[in-house]
Amino acid sequence: MTSSSDLEQIETRTLSLVRDFSFLHADDAVANSCRPIADAVARQAVTSSEGGKRLRALLTLDAFRAFAPREVLERDMDAVLDLACAIEVFQTGALVHDDIIDDSDLRRGKPSAHRALSMDTHSDAIGNGLGIMLGDMLATASVDIADKAASRLGSGTAVVSAFLNMHREVEIGQVLDLAVELNSLDNPAELAAASLNVFRWKTASYTTIAPLEFGMLAAGDDAGTARDCALAIGLPLGLAFQLADDLLDVIGSSRNTGKPIGGDIREGKRTVLLADAIDAADEKERRELISMWESSSRNEEQVARAIELFESTGAIERSKERITELWSESRKAIESLNLPRQRKDMLVEACARFVPIVRG
Amino acid sequence: MTSSSDLEQIETRTLSLVRDFSFLHADDAVANSCRPIADAVARQAVTSSEGGKRLRALLTLDAFRAFAPREVLERDMDAVLDLACAIEVFQTGALVHDDIIDDSDLRRGKPSAHRALSMDTHSDAIGNGLGIMLGDMLATASVDIADKAASRLGSGTAVVSAFLNMHREVEIGQVLDLAVELNSLDNPAELAAASLNVFRWKTASYTTIAPLEFGMLAAGDDAGTARDCALAIGLPLGLAFQLADDLLDVIGSSRNTGKPIGGDIREGKRTVLLADAIDAADEKERRELISMWESSSRNEEQVARAIELFESTGAIERSKERITELWSESRKAIESLNLPRQRKDMLVEACARFVPIVRG
Repeated sequence: MTSSSDLEQIETRTLSLVRDFSFLHADDAVANSCRPIADAVARQAVTSSEGGKRLRALLTLDAFRAFAPREVLERDMDAVLDLACAIEVFQTGALVHDDIIDDSDLRRGKPSAHRALSMDTHSDAIGNGLGIMLGDMLATASVDIADKAASRLGSGTAVVSAFLNMHREVEIGQVLDLAVELNSLDNPAELAAASLNVFRWKTASYTTIAPLEFGMLAAGDDAGTARDCALAIGLPLGLAFQLADDLLDVIGSSRNTGKPIGGDIREGKRTVLLADAIDAADEKERRELISMWESSSRNEEQVARAIELFESTGAIERSKERITELWSESRKAIESLNLPRQRKDMLVEACARFVPIVRG
Repeated sequence: MTSSSDLEQIETRTLSLVRDFSFLHADDAVANSCRPIADAVARQAVTSSEGGKRLRALLTLDAFRAFAPREVLERDMDAVLDLACAIEVFQTGALVHDDIIDDSDLRRGKPSAHRALSMDTHSDAIGNGLGIMLGDMLATASVDIADKAASRLGSGTAVVSAFLNMHREVEIGQVLDLAVELNSLDNPAELAAASLNVFRWKTASYTTIAPLEFGMLAAGDDAGTARDCALAIGLPLGLAFQLADDLLDVIGSSRNTGKPIGGDIREGKRTVLLADAIDAADEKERRELISMWESSSRNEEQVARAIELFESTGAIERSKERITELWSESRKAIESLNLPRQRKDMLVEACARFVPIVRG
């Protein structure tokens, strides 16, 4: 594994690709009086792109390494690096829109893009508008980067189509995520199913399925095989990743994630944890949880009480079990691949990054 | 010219392509409780796509007819129809975002997408979020349609890249359009230049330049030739189109456009007309115009007064001159093409649709 040097390369390449796309080009004739705002948006594109964990790009590189014949590996590694970065650029764009939708002030410890642009222009309306456009630009950039990378690959014809399918899936996922907020809290089994379903679209789609699929396509696998295999490994892995993420929000992590505990509860997010807690709670606790989530906000005491109930009802334990089962499903899919032992082990190691919670 | 039958085919095909992309597919596993919202978004995708003038798709078809060798014309017409519709789908997505940015209630006489979705969900926050996602989905759909069309073309390798460049240009244009709102009214020459520059990016890019470019690429021209030629004809034409559109907003049209006169003035848009009026006005009128535009809204009496000043200062006449000059530039570029007389005439006819104001 060379993930620390991978990480550096991904970071450098991603920022350079975003810069190339977002800043005005030499032959872009733009009126001088409008240039400062165009520059501010381009700068924000770079700022918003900095400092991700790059898990998706890392998985793309490792999937390519696991599946590619040696001669393809050497020939196409640089194009695959671009393709890996394209997912990161796509994610940044999706997060810019997500922060507008959720009206979030912060992202990765800095002002969210639309907030920063509102401050730059002294106008929330213009800042939000520029934020919507920045998200659009990054989405376009991501496809452009993938398209150019695909044209450099020996076998890249299906890559753009798969990349656009990833866009579509995440967009459906965002729609479903908003739909879940309209779900009733009276049917926790349905809520848990709906939340897991949102994870498939909103998270697994681009976090684990697409990186595996792109790595395999670049390695020369045909579209059908790449898709089936990416789903078999990536779907359970992506669900486990999101469950682990939601769990860390409640129980905290040994690594300091920089996020205060209970953020999802404070925001009233309808998570699988909440559904499991409502499902296992007695009548009194059930009503307590539902009334907390139906009110417009939750204070610190209520956040602490909700965490207590997540623990006492066994919802936290249930999430850990779910994660363990999903991770085992994912490993079984890897085990069944027709690959040398060493390559399988490398792939397991690469996938394990998404479920730190079962490793510790 | 077969533009009425073209129009029918474009309308039918566009709606069918949007339906195919936006509605959940047979193998899309979506939780039942979330399905109604996903369906509402997909229905809105179709509603928002209905009833455009389809000028851009018509120009794409006609440009292909003007430039393509006979055998290419017969072989690739159906794929070019898809490509033409892809621009319409792109436009619909851009308008959905535009209406959120401008907080517009109406589009083509119906509730704008985010408003309709707010009514569906009884929540402005969720409706706006779904609107942002719908715009994203249509943008993705447009590239997907173009990518699939390109793969059916005999010479389509540069199409996706040109299509993404169109996305980028319009996104820059939207950024510049917001930037113009921060321009000072004290320098009308600069404002006129900045407004015309916005037209190049926000309008000409996808209204006239891209359709000509796509038609030529599909016809087999190389990327450089297609780009240069599309700019020579399409840039002045696109500027003339937007100037004519702004002019019709003030002087009305013989055809009933269904829009009340003076909408741009009511909204306080910083147009070339306004810049020309401020530039030619005497000191008293100048201050009158600036103070009208600097206030947060304009009443009906002020709208009438602004139109009066646009007329008396000669700004309306100046816009007509600008349109005539630009249209003449565009025709000269067509005239200089190495094409049979009949094909040149057809192209002039096709381009003339964008400047109805100089034909009447």
